[in-house]
Amino acid sequence: LISPESRNYKGIAISLLVIVAVCSLITMSVFVLTPVELPGAANSRLTVLDLFKPEFSVHDPEARWISDSEVLYRNRDGHVIKFNFALNETEMILRNSTFVSFKVAKYSLSPDMKYVLFAYEVKQVYRHSYTASYIVYNIHTREVWELNPPEVQNAVLQHAAWGVKGQQLIYIFENNIYYQSDVQSNSLRITSSGEEGVIFNGIADWLYEEEILQSHIVHWWSPDGERLAFLMINDTLVPNMFLPRFTGSPYPRSQEYPYPKAGQPNPTVRLLVVNLYGPTHTQELVPPDGLKGREHYVSMVKWISNTHAAVRWLNRPQNGSFITVCDATVGSCVQKHEEASDLWLTRQNQEPVFSKDGSRFFLTIPVKQGGQGDFHHIAMFTKSFRSDQNDARHLTSGNWEVTKILAYDEGEQTIYFIGTQDSPQKRHVYSASTIGLFSQRCLTCEMNQEACTFFDADISPNKQHVILQCKGTSLVSYFILDNNMPLRAALEIKKISKSLNQPPSLARSLSLSLSFSPSPFRPSLSDGGPGSQSVSDEYELGWDSVLVSCDEVIVARLDGRGTGFRGLRVLQQVHQRLGTVDVQDQIAALEYLMTLPYIDRARIGIYGKGYGAYLTLMLLRSTALIKCAAANSPVVDWKLYASAFSERYFGLTSKNDNRYQVSSVGLVLFSKTICETNWCFFVLFSANVHFQHSAELIKHLIKVGANYTMQLYPDEGHFLSLQSQQHLSESLVGYFRTCFQDFSTPLPEEIGKEDDD
Amino acid sequence: LISPESRNYKGIAISLLVIVAVCSLITMSVFVLTPVELPGAANSRLTVLDLFKPEFSVHDPEARWISDSEVLYRNRDGHVIKFNFALNETEMILRNSTFVSFKVAKYSLSPDMKYVLFAYEVKQVYRHSYTASYIVYNIHTREVWELNPPEVQNAVLQHAAWGVKGQQLIYIFENNIYYQSDVQSNSLRITSSGEEGVIFNGIADWLYEEEILQSHIVHWWSPDGERLAFLMINDTLVPNMFLPRFTGSPYPRSQEYPYPKAGQPNPTVRLLVVNLYGPTHTQELVPPDGLKGREHYVSMVKWISNTHAAVRWLNRPQNGSFITVCDATVGSCVQKHEEASDLWLTRQNQEPVFSKDGSRFFLTIPVKQGGQGDFHHIAMFTKSFRSDQNDARHLTSGNWEVTKILAYDEGEQTIYFIGTQDSPQKRHVYSASTIGLFSQRCLTCEMNQEACTFFDADISPNKQHVILQCKGTSLVSYFILDNNMPLRAALEIKKISKSLNQPPSLARSLSLSLSFSPSPFRPSLSDGGPGSQSVSDEYELGWDSVLVSCDEVIVARLDGRGTGFRGLRVLQQVHQRLGTVDVQDQIAALEYLMTLPYIDRARIGIYGKGYGAYLTLMLLRSTALIKCAAANSPVVDWKLYASAFSERYFGLTSKNDNRYQVSSVGLVLFSKTICETNWCFFVLFSANVHFQHSAELIKHLIKVGANYTMQLYPDEGHFLSLQSQQHLSESLVGYFRTCFQDFSTPLPEEIGKEDDD
Repeated sequence: LISPESRNYKGIAISLLVIVAVCSLITMSVFVLTPVELPGAANSRLTVLDLFKPEFSVHDPEARWISDSEVLYRNRDGHVIKFNFALNETEMILRNSTFVSFKVAKYSLSPDMKYVLFAYEVKQVYRHSYTASYIVYNIHTREVWELNPPEVQNAVLQHAAWGVKGQQLIYIFENNIYYQSDVQSNSLRITSSGEEGVIFNGIADWLYEEEILQSHIVHWWSPDGERLAFLMINDTLVPNMFLPRFTGSPYPRSQEYPYPKAGQPNPTVRLLVVNLYGPTHTQELVPPDGLKGREHYVSMVKWISNTHAAVRWLNRPQNGSFITVCDATVGSCVQKHEEASDLWLTRQNQEPVFSKDGSRFFLTIPVKQGGQGDFHHIAMFTKSFRSDQNDARHLTSGNWEVTKILAYDEGEQTIYFIGTQDSPQKRHVYSASTIGLFSQRCLTCEMNQEACTFFDADISPNKQHVILQCKGTSLVSYFILDNNMPLRAALEIKKISKSLNQPPSLARSLSLSLSFSPSPFRPSLSDGGPGSQSVSDEYELGWDSVLVSCDEVIVARLDGRGTGFRGLRVLQQVHQRLGTVDVQDQIAALEYLMTLPYIDRARIGIYGKGYGAYLTLMLLRSTALIKCAAANSPVVDWKLYASAFSERYFGLTSKNDNRYQVSSVGLVLFSKTICETNWCFFVLFSANVHFQHSAELIKHLIKVGANYTMQLYPDEGHFLSLQSQQHLSESLVGYFRTCFQDFSTPLPEEIGKEDDD
Repeated sequence: LISPESRNYKGIAISLLVIVAVCSLITMSVFVLTPVELPGAANSRLTVLDLFKPEFSVHDPEARWISDSEVLYRNRDGHVIKFNFALNETEMILRNSTFVSFKVAKYSLSPDMKYVLFAYEVKQVYRHSYTASYIVYNIHTREVWELNPPEVQNAVLQHAAWGVKGQQLIYIFENNIYYQSDVQSNSLRITSSGEEGVIFNGIADWLYEEEILQSHIVHWWSPDGERLAFLMINDTLVPNMFLPRFTGSPYPRSQEYPYPKAGQPNPTVRLLVVNLYGPTHTQELVPPDGLKGREHYVSMVKWISNTHAAVRWLNRPQNGSFITVCDATVGSCVQKHEEASDLWLTRQNQEPVFSKDGSRFFLTIPVKQGGQGDFHHIAMFTKSFRSDQNDARHLTSGNWEVTKILAYDEGEQTIYFIGTQDSPQKRHVYSASTIGLFSQRCLTCEMNQEACTFFDADISPNKQHVILQCKGTSLVSYFILDNNMPLRAALEIKKISKSLNQPPSLARSLSLSLSFSPSPFRPSLSDGGPGSQSVSDEYELGWDSVLVSCDEVIVARLDGRGTGFRGLRVLQQVHQRLGTVDVQDQIAALEYLMTLPYIDRARIGIYGKGYGAYLTLMLLRSTALIKCAAANSPVVDWKLYASAFSERYFGLTSKNDNRYQVSSVGLVLFSKTICETNWCFFVLFSANVHFQHSAELIKHLIKVGANYTMQLYPDEGHFLSLQSQQHLSESLVGYFRTCFQDFSTPLPEEIGKEDDD
């Protein structure tokens, strides 16, 4: 790392762009213009076009374990490979040409490795969900046939996948689940209550997909493939939103979907288990007594044996939850764990890791660390003979967090996990003994010379091997499978930012990153609400890297109060006051940055998306420092956002309207003077953050006569196409380039000059 | 007028903005930057803010005849005045304070002058229509009561008005007509078939209001008030459009309304007459045999006596029409006049002027003028004893047009009319004898020193007096009633453009205007499709005047082929090829302008709205001259526009799809290079021109990576609020200012310069 202080800033006046990052929902940064060519900038500059070239993308081989010594992955050329590392043998399972000839994008291999399910005409629905048509392909005979429900032609399915054994197939059509015991057998319709936009079986509605489970798949196979647990989500009472679709037909159409806003009726949910072998029989698993008859979510389902499943039930205010273990054969549930909070509960999707006999399980829970507040650490729960509840034993501790439990090796009495012990920005793989003390070891900290500092990991079934994925800036994606050489080569000839995390003079509770040019690249941005992280070592290259590379801008990212991985005290400071303390932290960071010698106070910009765009607007309300502001799909009123999100942070609307009011952008307060001195630029599309928010904002901007321009991306559904992403990147770079220029150019003089010649 | 050639242009490089004008639908111009302060520019410069100040608006007293010697009008202070010019007496009928105390905007006086109908909470629906609540006010007792249908409270009515006698009242609620014989009597429901968005009685659907009758009122009183003719418009089969409304509620709403696009099912129409005195009885007036069972429009209804009405019936392709005179007592109609065209028929709303006994009538019809093609002239039709048809006698002739027949004075055997004999840009009032030859006289050509050249007129019942309204640049609105002194005073201290019409070197068939600074002001722009006019002497002050006043830009407006008032040959050249010859004319004008010594070829901009925005896009496709382009609510595909408009110019879609294709903007042809060298700027709102068009365009611009920005005005219904109009003006001025600047500034150098200090 090169410290900016070590450079000679004589005669330099630089500008700054703050990126406010967060949310599915979110993003914020600080940029600085350096005016003269710096020494050592021999490499070519990064362009927006570069960002979209194949050599600048990370290749993800999507590797997974298929046995204790075999890994299945897709290589850089598109071939699907089985790799046996014990024998050091590779076998090509599917050629890339097969994908091309069927025009398919997605594939999955049957558990018996004999068939492939190919998805084609894939159309994104929400963040995770998509519709597609499917064909089944016999690898050996090369036979293919379409996957269709009985008496339906050319079906468009909401989901199709193999089960866990042999050739079990499951698919979802018109919100009903269908099952085939093998590729040749007839389809069995498991449910019949499904109704599009009303009752969802095995597939999530918008709320469950986006805010509760972070997945559209809401069914779970028992390990032996004999039982399937699934949610039946009933949206009958939920009001509909509509997304207009303007192009492509003589009359525009409107897509309706249930979307409960804060305080509106939520979907109701039932958890059912169907017996697939022998006579079909459906058993309901019921919530614990504490939630019976009260509104609740099912936030986690995990089979822990062939007959038992662990289920987490969460109340609507999201401040109380229960884990029960249910016997799917009779439908009875036993409560295993209870959580409650005065604020809101975190990590409600987390799957506990159970021992084989189900007698103990591991879970990360908030644990008080002296005066520093709660941090997420691993607790081991063991059946207690004294009470209904389990005994808990804490396996890790300290003012850092366990982000994910990877595996439990019963033989070695060892637990594997990912944690932030080194720094909140890093992710390393650790092991800890479940019996001894002080037995924790970092497995990846000193592993190789490239010094990857941000890992993900997948441990083999017998706990003997691990697929390590480096997601950090050293760019080694899979050590064995892919070293991402093309990307490394592409980046080497570009002038890309070098970043500086955590300047020494800033408060410890804030995590700040600055990206300079010339340098390697900057730390990543996150993409979630409160609890997410902007400053980490995870690799990411975005449009702001272009500004850093070409325009001598410094990009700053700050994780202040409300962000994750630094304990619950930092995270939960925003309870019932989103957009207050987190904005104060951004301003504190800005004021710190103003003291740096090379920053041009006249040229400070800000960018945010979703929640970040909301923060951008709140910042504009509070400070006159910012001259250029871009808000991408801003939230302006939390009452217009999803119930499960807004209510988590503000509580139910009936009681707490005032809290909502305080945290809405409060357009009336958005004064004329602010909007006259700042350039505002709004990028809008129909996403989870509805156009409603932008419409309210635009109406207000017109009312006060604000100086703004905008870009609109119509008919993109919820997420931008690659083309639109590229256009958006070009627009953002262009906007900040022009805006920073304008604030350094006294216009009238310039006109005089050029017209004289 | 100051000729631009007479000025010294040494060292001047100016830029140009072309405004493409037309349509309800339409607008196009050429602008030029002059770089240095010109001598004589002592006055302060015009700003956008000025445009919206009361002193810059024209006051329209809405004067009308109430007897042969009395005029009713509303003066500048808001008082309603009765003026008897025979006695030179004025009487205040309503004080301005009455308007304030009832918070009302619109008023109308009962025929017996005893009551006033006040409208409040007026909400615009389409161009002409609005909903409102009404109160009836007794002028003498000051009593008020609400106007409500039986058993309805706080009714929002679609229309309410006095009849023609005494205190007759009519109103429309939920598409049904209600009648009261006086203010005290009970309401009588005249129709019961009305259904919102489906069957319309006495009130127009969108198509009839916007494209057929240019009014939302589709009922007509017989002169004695005993009968009411009305249309029953049935939209059952017409597909609905929706206008999303995003703001103001937790869930956005969508307003649906029937809107037949080209080739889609049209509304069907029936013309009914109801007898209001005695037992209510409804009689249908049927179309002539030539249209029975075929799709048609009713494009004009006019009572010519207490029992007879003239009706014009127009076939769906709009190339054949019939005028019949119908006896409302028995429902029988006699055909009086027939028109047919190979192209399309013009002036289908025109009301014939009948003699009292109905034996003769006057109408403007296209008349061949030697080799110069057809021009609209007055024909007098007299009952022929030889045939069913009438004898026609032409009262005017020449290569100019009669724009409007004002009145027929039977005693003097004189017809009064407005015409363009002087110049297509002017409007004067003429009289002509219905018997003699060469008797035509211009009544306003040499009337006063102020030399008003653009008149409208309203002739008194006994044909002895006329209210003259000067709509031209001399700004004398009503000679007697209001001289618009405040506006004249406001303009006198501003530096406003001087205009030059018709430079001598340009072809006679084109009509071009240029606006220079400093000067008085520029000629008007029109607001209609083919047949409209951009270059005339009608007064108008718009955002482009600000550019002329402040930025030394020259604005050019051109009326080429397809525009009105210069004969049908010029007008109908665009038949089945909108956007071809009219674009060629714009390019010809541009090329002419390029030869002027003071025009900067590097800085040419263009602006158009609706149809004009369509022309803007077509021009961008054809020439690389233009650097800055703004399109306001562009049409990109005529198949997406209203049936009655598109079919008039292209024919029915089934047969002529190819013609539609040729004239659609053809986004594929809209090449990448054009969009890279031009700046595109799109201003969009939900108007008659649906957002669909813009969405298609934006999608394409994103696809080719075009450099554009936009402004959006959500939830404005069909027409912009005053606030949004002001914002739009500011945005347009700001856009062209910046864009013209950018094209004179070599960007990289500038950065270097400013950063060095």
